[in-house]
Amino acid sequence: MNQNDMVLEIPYGTRDFLPDESAAKRVIESRLMNIFSSWGYDEIVTPVIEYLDTLTMEGGETIEPHLFKFFDRNNRTIALRHEMTTPIARVVASRMREEPRPLRLSYVSDVCRYEEAQAGRQCEFYQAGVELMGSASPAADAEVIALAAECMRKSGLKNFQICLGEVEFVSGLMRQFHLGEETQEKIKGAMERRDLVTLKNIVDETSMPAASREVLANLPLLHGGEEIIKKAWDIAINEESRRALDNLSAIYRLLKSYGVADAVYFDLGVIRDFSYYTGMVFEAYTPGLGFPLAGGGRYDRLLSDFGAPCPATGFALGIERLMLALEREGQSKKHTKKDVFIAYADGKLETAIEAATKQRADGKAVELSPSPMTEAEAESDGRRAKYDELIYVK
Amino acid sequence: MNQNDMVLEIPYGTRDFLPDESAAKRVIESRLMNIFSSWGYDEIVTPVIEYLDTLTMEGGETIEPHLFKFFDRNNRTIALRHEMTTPIARVVASRMREEPRPLRLSYVSDVCRYEEAQAGRQCEFYQAGVELMGSASPAADAEVIALAAECMRKSGLKNFQICLGEVEFVSGLMRQFHLGEETQEKIKGAMERRDLVTLKNIVDETSMPAASREVLANLPLLHGGEEIIKKAWDIAINEESRRALDNLSAIYRLLKSYGVADAVYFDLGVIRDFSYYTGMVFEAYTPGLGFPLAGGGRYDRLLSDFGAPCPATGFALGIERLMLALEREGQSKKHTKKDVFIAYADGKLETAIEAATKQRADGKAVELSPSPMTEAEAESDGRRAKYDELIYVK
Repeated sequence: MNQNDMVLEIPYGTRDFLPDESAAKRVIESRLMNIFSSWGYDEIVTPVIEYLDTLTMEGGETIEPHLFKFFDRNNRTIALRHEMTTPIARVVASRMREEPRPLRLSYVSDVCRYEEAQAGRQCEFYQAGVELMGSASPAADAEVIALAAECMRKSGLKNFQICLGEVEFVSGLMRQFHLGEETQEKIKGAMERRDLVTLKNIVDETSMPAASREVLANLPLLHGGEEIIKKAWDIAINEESRRALDNLSAIYRLLKSYGVADAVYFDLGVIRDFSYYTGMVFEAYTPGLGFPLAGGGRYDRLLSDFGAPCPATGFALGIERLMLALEREGQSKKHTKKDVFIAYADGKLETAIEAATKQRADGKAVELSPSPMTEAEAESDGRRAKYDELIYVK
Repeated sequence: MNQNDMVLEIPYGTRDFLPDESAAKRVIESRLMNIFSSWGYDEIVTPVIEYLDTLTMEGGETIEPHLFKFFDRNNRTIALRHEMTTPIARVVASRMREEPRPLRLSYVSDVCRYEEAQAGRQCEFYQAGVELMGSASPAADAEVIALAAECMRKSGLKNFQICLGEVEFVSGLMRQFHLGEETQEKIKGAMERRDLVTLKNIVDETSMPAASREVLANLPLLHGGEEIIKKAWDIAINEESRRALDNLSAIYRLLKSYGVADAVYFDLGVIRDFSYYTGMVFEAYTPGLGFPLAGGGRYDRLLSDFGAPCPATGFALGIERLMLALEREGQSKKHTKKDVFIAYADGKLETAIEAATKQRADGKAVELSPSPMTEAEAESDGRRAKYDELIYVK
């Protein structure tokens, strides 16, 4: 590869958005920000870099290998942010500490994680999301789930499903079976990857009775409609798991009022990839896309780790994944608005400029040729084709 | 400082935008993108990181100390982008190589440079800008200058001035006086910093006749209205400088047609801080802000360094600087739209959810309380104050 080709490369897992893609991205992002605003969420913008210590507050050992890290000039470790919940918790615990709760905050932002890149999973990607901080009630959880559903629906997506779980249900079960910390982590890891074979192997290595082993190995299969709650109730003979199931029932009742219960599917094996979740967790899926489109949940400990205890819930939605899902549904459109192409004869540039100014004042999107051409040339110009109308000044 | 305070810090030269600031930023950015679109510019989005080799194509030795650098997993050096012109040139020279010229591209993006941080100059900041690639004509230069003026005007800024120069005018003069490469670079550096004392010292150390020394030392004073072109013509008895002056005259004539000539001021000492400029350069200033609000110029060599020769011109505008300038003019407004606050009595959450859904369908921005409260509590709630209307469901 020669020097010239090298400088044309971009880092692994990154991408350029060409004009059509950028326009589609902007339309989606604007729409999402409008929805967030109509639900009372205010946008917040945080730096592209954070101190490593801030980003690894919760689950540092799990996330650190995925971070883009470097040193600042004082030799403190900096990293590109890998998600927005932690930076927003930092702001709320510092500059917004005195603001009346609940706080409703939203963002649209790029985040970076080292991952094996593939369609729908890049190392740099865009997320839009919300955080509702200062309420522990199922009403808050139902609101963020309903808002996630509204985002997908208003973006034009027809087929999606929201898988709803509860991390305390799983934790309660593991305590009920007296599993050690290490085994619990291994089991959670396998569940997060939905790796049933590994899960079964881990469970089989424990000294639990066969019946208990079967319950744990089959947790990822505990999914379906409302009847799953009843079924899970019978399995979980501990207070923590049952409180979690009551919580899910309360949330589900509210989701019916929001009119989104139809899209909700209980999946008690849902474990999200951040260790800060403490209650309800959910993921949104669409057919044919192997990754969740959106995900979120309750994280009641994160703010107290920043010294400002406060229950919280939220979600993030992957912009590129939503774009991909819309494309697969045949919902993607060309958005670049192209109204008038203005060309002109030699010596007529000044008149053409005045015509362009007038058209723009009328709200038209106008491209002015930077050089004179004949009328025939204007008609056949490669750029003319992109515009509805040609104005030729002669 | 304890651990807790450490994790609340953000890296040097970065900032958070709280809700009011984020809303103001979004309003400005949306408005700029709409203006760009109405002038025929299509948005493009590039990665937050690039290979160092790409970013330092032109003037690497000058810019490299200002970059946030690190290694990727293959030990190639990556950097956070410090501006958008070079990444866009990369895209145009690769994936957009075959697109018909001219190309009109726009962006709004954060960029990072190590700088001494102060009001209006942070290490991470936001820029909106355009690149017009594929035309060498003064029409293209006039278009980008007029567009920059339109952006400031339509953002509500009342007082600004565009200082217009030509790098070839300065280069021609330096060759006319037979200055060596090293002396030329020193002179350009001093001019870029507008450091008249250093400039005079450098010039005085040369062996030029006194008259020539005076001309060079006083270059930064060569500013004013149209009469400056005539004055400069008499000083510059070399073809290169005079061609540059003809170019400025042609651009200025077109700026009259655009109706922005009133805001334009010739400043033949303007040298921009990127070494890739080859012709017209400009900077926009507003009273009381020590940094340019916007700046740009012609860069006819950059694309050929990427293997796709093509003349080009463009500008970038600093979003935070524009926000600061508007604030100083008393033009900043609160933008967070707040319509309806919905509170409810115990047991009335479901009805309140239905009310919220209805109000949102009517286009209202609605905040729903996450917990029940009495009507008196609702009236006096800290959050109610932010909303025009209270709906209490009982």
